[in-house]
Order: sequence, then C-alpha cells, then structure tokens
Amino acid sequence: MATDSASFFRQTSVPDKFEERNQCIKSFVERHKSLQNRIVLVSSGGTTVPLESRTVRFIDNFSVGTRGSSSAEYFLDKGYAVIFLYSKKSLIPYTRHFVKIPFLDLLDSCVKNDDVCVRDEYRGEIKTVLQKYRQVTDEGRLLMVDFSNLTEYLHLLRASSQHLNSIGPQAMLYLAAAVSDFYIPKSDMPQHKIQSSDGPLQLELQLVPKMLEPLTREWCPNAFTVSFKLETDMEILLSKAKRALNKYNHQVVIANLLETRKTEVMVVTRDSDQWLRLSGEELASGTEIETKIVEELQKKHDEFRT
Amino acid sequence: MATDSASFFRQTSVPDKFEERNQCIKSFVERHKSLQNRIVLVSSGGTTVPLESRTVRFIDNFSVGTRGSSSAEYFLDKGYAVIFLYSKKSLIPYTRHFVKIPFLDLLDSCVKNDDVCVRDEYRGEIKTVLQKYRQVTDEGRLLMVDFSNLTEYLHLLRASSQHLNSIGPQAMLYLAAAVSDFYIPKSDMPQHKIQSSDGPLQLELQLVPKMLEPLTREWCPNAFTVSFKLETDMEILLSKAKRALNKYNHQVVIANLLETRKTEVMVVTRDSDQWLRLSGEELASGTEIETKIVEELQKKHDEFRT
Repeated sequence: MATDSASFFRQTSVPDKFEERNQCIKSFVERHKSLQNRIVLVSSGGTTVPLESRTVRFIDNFSVGTRGSSSAEYFLDKGYAVIFLYSKKSLIPYTRHFVKIPFLDLLDSCVKNDDVCVRDEYRGEIKTVLQKYRQVTDEGRLLMVDFSNLTEYLHLLRASSQHLNSIGPQAMLYLAAAVSDFYIPKSDMPQHKIQSSDGPLQLELQLVPKMLEPLTREWCPNAFTVSFKLETDMEILLSKAKRALNKYNHQVVIANLLETRKTEVMVVTRDSDQWLRLSGEELASGTEIETKIVEELQKKHDEFRT
Repeated sequence: MATDSASFFRQTSVPDKFEERNQCIKSFVERHKSLQNRIVLVSSGGTTVPLESRTVRFIDNFSVGTRGSSSAEYFLDKGYAVIFLYSKKSLIPYTRHFVKIPFLDLLDSCVKNDDVCVRDEYRGEIKTVLQKYRQVTDEGRLLMVDFSNLTEYLHLLRASSQHLNSIGPQAMLYLAAAVSDFYIPKSDMPQHKIQSSDGPLQLELQLVPKMLEPLTREWCPNAFTVSFKLETDMEILLSKAKRALNKYNHQVVIANLLETRKTEVMVVTRDSDQWLRLSGEELASGTEIETKIVEELQKKHDEFRT
C-alpha cells in the first residue's frame, strides 16, 4: 500500500544536523531575495534506501550526479543563485572536471621552490575552472547541501522548497536527483545484518510517495518546477512525461533514456515536446547537453516570470 | 538454492576489458616473482548487485574502502608489492587522505608566477603523501585494478589468485572487500527499469557462492589467506570466524563489528584469537588500526613462509 507524503514524514525522524542546514538554506534564500536574484534548487545524485536498521546494505541507483552538477554550473553562468542539494559521493560543480585522474597525479613538487604545483599539462584547464569556481564562491551564489539517504533528501527538499516559496515565480526547482521509487519502512527492517546462512533473501519494498504532489500543491506552488523522467524503454517515455505533467500540474519534464541521456533529451510541457540533441561536432568538441537544457529552461522561466 | 562457484562463472559472461587487466596482473606477478618480492592482493570496497539488466538500480553496501586502501599503504611501507583490487568510487591509497575537501579548495593561483599551487595550509601533508606515492609508483610496486560489480570482482579475484599461485606462500590474499551475499541471477532479472506503477516490489535474491572455497582449494591453495567477518552482533562474531576457518582451511579471519571497526578488530586463527585495539592516545594522534593489523599479519606471514 502506498503511504502518503504526510505519513512518510511522520514515520521518519528528523535527520542529524538537519536544523543547521535548514538555517543555511533559509539565509541563502533571504539574501538572494533581497538582491532580487533568481534562485534555482538543483537536486542531484541518487538516494539510497537502507535494507537494515544499522545499515550494512542498501539499494542505490546508477546516478553519479553528472546531470545535476553540470547543470548547476550552467545555471551559475546564467546568473542564477544555486542551491545544490546532492548525494554524498556524487559529482559536484567544477570539481567534477577532475575526478577521473587521482588527485595526486595532478600534482608535482616544484624544484625551484618549496611549492607543490599542478603539473604543466593540467594547469590551463584547472586554472580556467578554478577562476569560475572562485568567482561564484566569492559572490556567494552557490550553496552546497549534501544528503546521504532517501529520508534526509526528502526532509531537505521539503525545507528548501518551502523557503523558496517566498520568492514565488523567481524560483526554479530542477529536480535531477534520481529518487528511489521503493523503500523499506523502519518497522519492517531487521535490526542486525541479514544473515546469508538463512538462505535466499525475500525483500518486500513499499512505494515511496511521489513528493511532486505536495511540492507543487503546498510547499512551493508558484515556482517554475522541472522534473525528470528516466526510462530504458522509448515506447513509454513521452506518455509517462505527459501523465506526470497532468498529474502534478508543474511546468516541464525532461524525459530521457538511460542509454542516450548524455546526447539527447526531450523537453516536455503540457502543450509541447521538443528534442534537444548534440550534433556530432558538438559531441566531438566536448559540449554537454546540459548547456542546451539550461538555455531552454532559462527562456521558459523568463516567460513564466512575466 | 545455492549455486556452486563453477556454475556461477558459467552463468556469467566475461566482463568488458577483462583480458587487458588480466594481462596486467599476470606481468605484475611475474616481475615481482623474478625480484623475489612478497605480493599481497588487497581487495577493497563493496560489490554492487544489479536489480535490472540495463542497470538503473542495484544493491550496494556501506563500504567505502577505508580498510583496504589504508592497509594497502601499510603493506607498501613493509616492502610488499600490492595488487589493489578496488570498487570504482571507493577510496584508493594515498589519494584517500584528501577526499574530504573538494579538490579545488586545496588549490590557489600563485601571484608570483603562472602556477597553480597547493595552498600553504595543506602543503606539508600533501608533500609527505605525494613523496610516498611517487616512490611506490616509481618502484612499480602498486598495481591498481578497479571493478564495478560483483561479477567483475569475482572474475578478477579468480584471475589474480590463480596468477599468485605461482609464488606459493610468498603471496598473501587480504580480502577486505565487502562482497555481496546475495544476487539476482541474470535469468530472473527484468530487462527494463522496474516500474513503480506496478505497486510494491518483491525481490528474491539468491545466495552468492562462497568463493573462499574454490580459492583456498583450487585457485591459490598455498598462499597466506586472510578473510574478513563484519557483523553487527557481538554474540556471533567469534563463532562465525572460527567456523569460516574450519570450513575454508585458510590462515586468518579479521573479525570486527560495524560500529567499532575503526578502533578494534579480532585476529582469529584456528588456535588463537587476539584483540587489536587503539588506545585513546593513538586515536587522538590519528593512528589507524590498519597499521596494527598489517604489522601482525606480516609477522604471521613470515612464520608461514618459513
């Protein structure tokens, strides 16, 4: 049986260090409200679902936060203030460009003096990214908030969107995090690690309530809200996107397939659907599809605000 | 019904890029064999188990590879050659010391020249670690091999241990990876993403065959083999460790509890069990329990070799 969102929150306890982060989000929103900045909440990464109370095992999904972390950069380029709500261990803006090489391989001891420097071959790229990063940090336009599991994510999502409600249509919610559809309620969870000597494992997972419902109805009804739909089956992609828009009454669904998600997405609204694609040339030059997504959403957000 | 290891391997296909990595492991072992070096295989991190064929969701465990990556450093300190078999996204030796701070926050553009340098406050520590890292790299004593899921891990474990068999008791297997106990056989897996509209999710997971069995019997019978036992319940910890030793006939089980695993472990052999613990002083100074584990194992490995 599906739980509704209110009882989900009642069942779960407030996560550790929630209040501290809640206050950070609140002041961030207030400051940018007074500066009349647009603010986008970018959620990113996956949400884990524990299978045991003292958690050894959990269900996760493939998301490493590429979509969210790159989009956050493009929103910052466009002048937005960004609340980046991301799962621990997923990619973060700017730093994400340098995760494929172990950090120590980027460095060299300088002979000429006592410094430890970035190696020549990486210096140019790191310098460019570092400058951008410093600029948004100095301007206080990027707030990083991390979470580690589904419950923590949902508490922080509710809090952030409630704060953003105070700026009405100036706010965008860009919900790129891959949120679990299923979870095991605390009352059904074994306390200790599941023993393999007990034989094959039967798990029964319950549906996570769809939080878009209270989000668009109560928490933040006037924001420009963008949700994501990831499928592996093209047949059902558009119909599922349209159904979501009708049901939750929000502005945009970005629909994409697991295997082509880095090169093409569909921007779906109640009365339109449009593919954004990278050309062969763009692909070769390292252009990211998120630059097109953000460009398109900024236009739509501009129309929406006026 | 439990599958035996042979049929597990028959059911699964050889992972991508397996042969390339297999060759690297083979040459690494041959080179250090000719140098008469001791070699330890350190497995590290968790193994994921896909729930769908085109994987969106998977079961993972909490392991981030702290035990494995720190132990690898201490084995390198002791002169071992190390094959570090680790799960993608888990911690790696040396670099692990600097993961809590986003990489870009460690850096600064130098005013005096065109360099990008490590900030003053981090320079000392980074320099020390960088030197050690360069030394083992220059000596070719560290081979890094990554895997992304259970099947890949098991194929690489079998290949590595078979190669290590050629150096007999000079080899140590230090199996710190948190291997899944359960998996979903390919034949039972849905091809597409599981739909939440179908209601609650029933999963039936099968037992993963215990690979210590073929490992100690066939693949690498003469090595010094160390397995790990992580529990959340103290009551069953020692008995489970002893049972494993009797069953698989290997040398050592490192037994530990989830909540205290960073400060105390039990070193269990067929005729002894001994706690290793960090004192308050050691804890305060940042000593890691792995330095004691490796020290103890080196002694036992020395006795075993002669």
